Amino acid sequence: MEIQDWFPIWNELTEEQRDRIQNSLIRRQIGAGTVIHSGSADCAGLLLVESGQLRAYILSDGGREITLYRLFARDICLFSASCMLRSVQFDVTIQAEKDTELWVIPTKNYQRILAQSAPLSNYTNEIMAARFSEVMWLLEQVMWKSMDRRVADFLLEEAAIEGGNRLSITHEAIANHLGTHREVITRMLRYLQGEGMVRLSRGTVELLDQKRLKELGYT
Amino acid sequence: MEIQDWFPIWNELTEEQRDRIQNSLIRRQIGAGTVIHSGSADCAGLLLVESGQLRAYILSDGGREITLYRLFARDICLFSASCMLRSVQFDVTIQAEKDTELWVIPTKNYQRILAQSAPLSNYTNEIMAARFSEVMWLLEQVMWKSMDRRVADFLLEEAAIEGGNRLSITHEAIANHLGTHREVITRMLRYLQGEGMVRLSRGTVELLDQKRLKELGYT
Repeated sequence: MEIQDWFPIWNELTEEQRDRIQNSLIRRQIGAGTVIHSGSADCAGLLLVESGQLRAYILSDGGREITLYRLFARDICLFSASCMLRSVQFDVTIQAEKDTELWVIPTKNYQRILAQSAPLSNYTNEIMAARFSEVMWLLEQVMWKSMDRRVADFLLEEAAIEGGNRLSITHEAIANHLGTHREVITRMLRYLQGEGMVRLSRGTVELLDQKRLKELGYT
Repeated sequence: MEIQDWFPIWNELTEEQRDRIQNSLIRRQIGAGTVIHSGSADCAGLLLVESGQLRAYILSDGGREITLYRLFARDICLFSASCMLRSVQFDVTIQAEKDTELWVIPTKNYQRILAQSAPLSNYTNEIMAARFSEVMWLLEQVMWKSMDRRVADFLLEEAAIEGGNRLSITHEAIANHLGTHREVITRMLRYLQGEGMVRLSRGTVELLDQKRLKELGYT
């Protein structure tokens, strides 16, 4: 992949700015499960995802999680450099969900160019707006949608990401994505199994009827 | 108020850019209750609040509301110009909660300067990050906090805004701020009344014990 794949505005930067970014890039390989960034203490820099999958989530005081969004190849993770944006007053945790290869642009290098370059600043704004939109979508789900529909949506999304109907995932992990308790998820999945939409076995959920799950989720 | 009160980066703009903003400003007086902006159809421009109070909220298909944040004097409303940010994929409604005086910068004028000016673009980014932070705070409330605590917080916030313990507000309006049903709010308020923390009468809620409401809300 080329740096233009992450920065469509690459040609609007000066040669000096492009060199500064290119020369600061750090390659990292991260194993599935690793927490890359946690809260405002970290400020490693922007992460340019080349392959793999990242998950951004928040944590309650009691240790409950809810997934905000996922990042895939060609995505940029901005909140791992949130210290450069003084007005970001919340803590996001970033975890590799799969083995992930990425490039890091250290915060200071990025910030220096951001201060000079309107194209880069406007593009950074677009990235933030995209993440904001995902969080607004989540807020709407949480506010207006019942948990059975959210579980149906989540299973369909996972099946689309994994490219198959057989998901290796625990009830605990689903609960951590959706911000609820394991018991709630177990009850929902048993209901969906009773309806013939999924089949459950130890550590897996198999989608038997995507059409009906869609009807349940999207209505 | 001076334009610098809204734009601390004013002196980092060129004279031409400053003139362009100054000359495009439109004065508006808006009566309490007026919806100024609704969803992506509108794109009037940035609103610079001089006095009064705006409320940003979202609507469910079924007509339920939840307040995202409020804007007061010296605040800038960005989402009334959200069409200039392609990646903003959600609809926010903006309503005047009180009689409000504001200036409008038409979207096209702002956007033109944004494309040239790194300081303005970075500052716009800060505004968006501040709103994003408020929505993240709300998401955390909705996810992790029970409704009685959210009602206590809301009453305390209102008392701080109004500068008094006697609030003229209906149960329906509280429900619309918090994204729930009127019946839920009525039940909560009666519980708080039973505990001696508030006194209810037609169209008003009087806070009798801020200390205990704080203990309930903030813990």
